Amino acid sequence: MTFPDTVTLVEVGPRDGFQLESKIIPTALKLEIISGLSAAGLKHIQVASFVNPRRVPQMADAAAVVEGLPAAPEVTFFGLALNAVGVRRAAEAGLSCVEVSISASDAHSRRNAGMSHEAALREGKKMVALANDAGMAVTASIQCAFGCVYEGPIPASRVLAAARMFVDAGAGRLTLADTTGMATPLSVEAMLREPALADAPVPIGLHLHDTRGLGLVNAAAGLRCGITFFDTALGGMGGCPFVAGAAGNIATEDTVHLMESMGARTGVDWRAVAACTRRLSSFLERPLPGRLYRLA
Amino acid sequence: MTFPDTVTLVEVGPRDGFQLESKIIPTALKLEIISGLSAAGLKHIQVASFVNPRRVPQMADAAAVVEGLPAAPEVTFFGLALNAVGVRRAAEAGLSCVEVSISASDAHSRRNAGMSHEAALREGKKMVALANDAGMAVTASIQCAFGCVYEGPIPASRVLAAARMFVDAGAGRLTLADTTGMATPLSVEAMLREPALADAPVPIGLHLHDTRGLGLVNAAAGLRCGITFFDTALGGMGGCPFVAGAAGNIATEDTVHLMESMGARTGVDWRAVAACTRRLSSFLERPLPGRLYRLA
Repeated sequence: MTFPDTVTLVEVGPRDGFQLESKIIPTALKLEIISGLSAAGLKHIQVASFVNPRRVPQMADAAAVVEGLPAAPEVTFFGLALNAVGVRRAAEAGLSCVEVSISASDAHSRRNAGMSHEAALREGKKMVALANDAGMAVTASIQCAFGCVYEGPIPASRVLAAARMFVDAGAGRLTLADTTGMATPLSVEAMLREPALADAPVPIGLHLHDTRGLGLVNAAAGLRCGITFFDTALGGMGGCPFVAGAAGNIATEDTVHLMESMGARTGVDWRAVAACTRRLSSFLERPLPGRLYRLA
Repeated sequence: MTFPDTVTLVEVGPRDGFQLESKIIPTALKLEIISGLSAAGLKHIQVASFVNPRRVPQMADAAAVVEGLPAAPEVTFFGLALNAVGVRRAAEAGLSCVEVSISASDAHSRRNAGMSHEAALREGKKMVALANDAGMAVTASIQCAFGCVYEGPIPASRVLAAARMFVDAGAGRLTLADTTGMATPLSVEAMLREPALADAPVPIGLHLHDTRGLGLVNAAAGLRCGITFFDTALGGMGGCPFVAGAAGNIATEDTVHLMESMGARTGVDWRAVAACTRRLSSFLERPLPGRLYRLA
């Protein structure tokens, strides 16, 4: 069996991680960490979400974070938006890339984005068009693609329909998100072998959570299926603020170790990422879920 | 690809987990947890190690633990021994099964067992003979089979020679132990495809640590190679007292979830295991590394 020999890790800690911390991380520390991650070799870094600051005060400084980003032309800094307002704010902040995201779960969509899945599909199409009109590159993600703690199994047809909508609308990359850690190696493989995804005209990425311990097992399954984009978060931070019990993303350091061990180069220095994790762990005064950073 | 449809989880928490806790777990609590694990459906439970009580005071009550074991004829309770003295103590305690263990790493063997690898090979042969003479079933394990933090890579030939010695001596099962979490999916697959192991006349098991985050990825790789015995510890407890930075075993609950998700029945109720983990976590006043027990 041959796997891809190069993969891209998409660092989402400064958004998916920082948004969940009850101790709000100051803008200056966010920027220090983002610079550290960039210096560690990460070429795609999600720096903020443009969501309602009253609901997610941890992201209220999104524009200030973008304003203070380091000069690193080789790095794609991008934001997350769940509706058209967010896309406009991302564009106004001056980002050249945005991730637009909808949930395949109706129950989760109502909690996380305040709209039904059907409404989110319409909003998704609008978000891609808006972003493209503003000259931004677009990654589109589908949350709860492998099941939902509120709704249970999600029909593959719903995920595939959302994927088709996003591709038709002009998204440049698709990400399947296991928001609540429901995926298993076999469900990941089954989904990725769906012809609509296996033959998709844009790259497919995975966004995996380790809620039930299978995060890296699912990443390995993804690599075996030829996936080359993986969302990760330093130290395994993260989780969805509107899902009870949601646990962290797969840890950037640990994913580097897994991928390199399987012959897939990442270009990321995991020890440099681990230094950022230790800095954050010290600020938050607790250990983070990742494993490898403890050994660095 | 087809995987085994049934696997056996070998619970090692009461030995590999309890031995590492600076807060010594009282005999009565050990027995309460062992009973809970047995009731959860685990059919193989390692209850103690028969090692020097001055070096590992956490295991000083080994004989008392065996004395107090619940009546459960369907469960194989067994101990661990690193030398002939330990095998004799296990037999005297009344156990019908013992795991004898040597390290493939010379440096680790000297730290953990106080003898060179060559001396451990001779001791291993003697331990199997002694145990069989005493009428005990024997599992033989090879520590650091996938590398060592002190010695680095371990030649496969050294692992295979130890495996051959154990089989020839009369061990009924072999376990390859990734004592310091150095294994990767590809190194696990490469080792298990060695003809001497793939065609071994006894079942092969894996003992995996999650030190670098790959514990369950390696377990999945083992399952793909047809492995049906996996050592696990409730809540992901554990580590070697004589290896710096060693982290826990793969968590029993999380391994149940992985295996069942891949179609391999375990016969274990992970929620009942999780109840034991929560009891211990409460006694130890800290979270344990496992993921799933937090959701139960």
